Amino acid sequence: MSSPDFSRLSINTATTKSLTLQEAVRVYADAGLQHIGVWRDRVAEAGLDNAVRLVREAGLEVSSLCRGGFLTAADADGQQRALADNTAAIREAAALGTRELIMVVGGLPAASALIGGPAVDPSVPGAKDVAAARRRVADRLAELVPVAQQYGVRLVLEPLHPMYAADRAVLSTLGQALDLAEPFPSDTVGVVVDTFHVWWDPALEASIARAGSEDRLASYQVCDFNLPIAADALLSRGYMGDGFVDFATIGRWVAQTGYVGPVEVEIFNQAIWDSPGADVVGTVKSRWAQHVLPHL
Amino acid sequence: MSSPDFSRLSINTATTKSLTLQEAVRVYADAGLQHIGVWRDRVAEAGLDNAVRLVREAGLEVSSLCRGGFLTAADADGQQRALADNTAAIREAAALGTRELIMVVGGLPAASALIGGPAVDPSVPGAKDVAAARRRVADRLAELVPVAQQYGVRLVLEPLHPMYAADRAVLSTLGQALDLAEPFPSDTVGVVVDTFHVWWDPALEASIARAGSEDRLASYQVCDFNLPIAADALLSRGYMGDGFVDFATIGRWVAQTGYVGPVEVEIFNQAIWDSPGADVVGTVKSRWAQHVLPHL
Repeated sequence: MSSPDFSRLSINTATTKSLTLQEAVRVYADAGLQHIGVWRDRVAEAGLDNAVRLVREAGLEVSSLCRGGFLTAADADGQQRALADNTAAIREAAALGTRELIMVVGGLPAASALIGGPAVDPSVPGAKDVAAARRRVADRLAELVPVAQQYGVRLVLEPLHPMYAADRAVLSTLGQALDLAEPFPSDTVGVVVDTFHVWWDPALEASIARAGSEDRLASYQVCDFNLPIAADALLSRGYMGDGFVDFATIGRWVAQTGYVGPVEVEIFNQAIWDSPGADVVGTVKSRWAQHVLPHL
Repeated sequence: MSSPDFSRLSINTATTKSLTLQEAVRVYADAGLQHIGVWRDRVAEAGLDNAVRLVREAGLEVSSLCRGGFLTAADADGQQRALADNTAAIREAAALGTRELIMVVGGLPAASALIGGPAVDPSVPGAKDVAAARRRVADRLAELVPVAQQYGVRLVLEPLHPMYAADRAVLSTLGQALDLAEPFPSDTVGVVVDTFHVWWDPALEASIARAGSEDRLASYQVCDFNLPIAADALLSRGYMGDGFVDFATIGRWVAQTGYVGPVEVEIFNQAIWDSPGADVVGTVKSRWAQHVLPHL
């Protein structure tokens, strides 16, 4: 029996959180992978020049940089900080040789303190106004598009599961992401399908087809939706097969768009983070071969 | 200063979980309320005839009965049980004098055991097929419509927050609920707007307007969306003002439909359940006067 084809498998460094970038590139390359998804915390630790060298020397291609975004600040200072941080992220993506910068757009001002942002009085007008927060995302995106174009980077909008709508992303569906992308060229603003976030969406089939026909499908990310929801809701992601995502169906819809790029496994899960990195990569490969690869 | 108008406020017995139905009707009536939302566990405890008498003697009107549903079983036995249980719920609603039977449609077979249903092998074909589960909901609904018509009861479809899509409701948006209702008369199949479940939906304004124009808005339920998500995700609901829902905006959209019925407060929250029932009713009244009433 021939070995499964791992040529499209990418693992995001967030999946092997205990590994430094130097360790991660070695473990991934030793496992025969050709791609790596990079989280910015690992780049910051290693230093950008060193990170670029480490990835290149391991012979890996960067499938995406995670993440830019957090564009919903209502105050001028917060908006300036967001533009500066996203400009830095765009430069990092370009240096790492990936076109795809994943964007988590940010939540409501009233929830900002929950994710380390400034405390905003929830009774201030607009602090819970989700429509106004979405308009600010569109405004910031328009300002970032020229910067992204200058560096040849694509801003990849990530709809997050609605359980994160208050604190992390007022962008909740793929259709909404495509609407937000519409004013901009498809090589500068794209979208990502992350199974955890969008599997429940009744419009998912149509929205994936639309992402394909509008040439905006920049990344396919896979992991499972586990229950019960973890104490830290961000950590409810699981190995493919451990939860409730129908990878056969979603994989088929993605394949029908003609998407042939890397498929990235990004899992935040405390039990997985507590396991040795090489074991995690081994399990990811086996689950990927079983649940994802047959449907691509 | 005149007292706030509580004539449209209804409290669901699930909000005061420690109270028997006999205690709840007394506490609500003493607080000057005119409506009560009834959860079926309280009806079962009291017995239906007794429940009807208790509510009537307290001078309360039943704004809704919660709940019917769980229509997604893929096996014949499970489907028969669902029809029998929903027929019983329809009869109870009619006996209690409410037209509105709230329907939580059910989740994936693979998650059935998580909510006390039969264990289904998750590798069985279709066990995680959300589209197939939705088709079964439509099939069961068609079977229940004649029963509901016979009793003069409306089946009120409740979209649940997508965090419950796997285990409780494959119906996640108000637009999807309206699509599901479309083949049936508006006096037999309606929809409910529950702020906790739908506040994040980018199509919410349009869907509420559609519910109004199609004459299907059967109930408006209010409570807040708290963060962090509770250890038992079902218990993340909070008093209005404690979380991230913009009641002014959603209330205005509901009011614009012409909805003038009861507004029901239904909160599952361990800290609230651990408080004395009369205190809970007092807090509900004050939060309702502050956050909900001004926008109706």
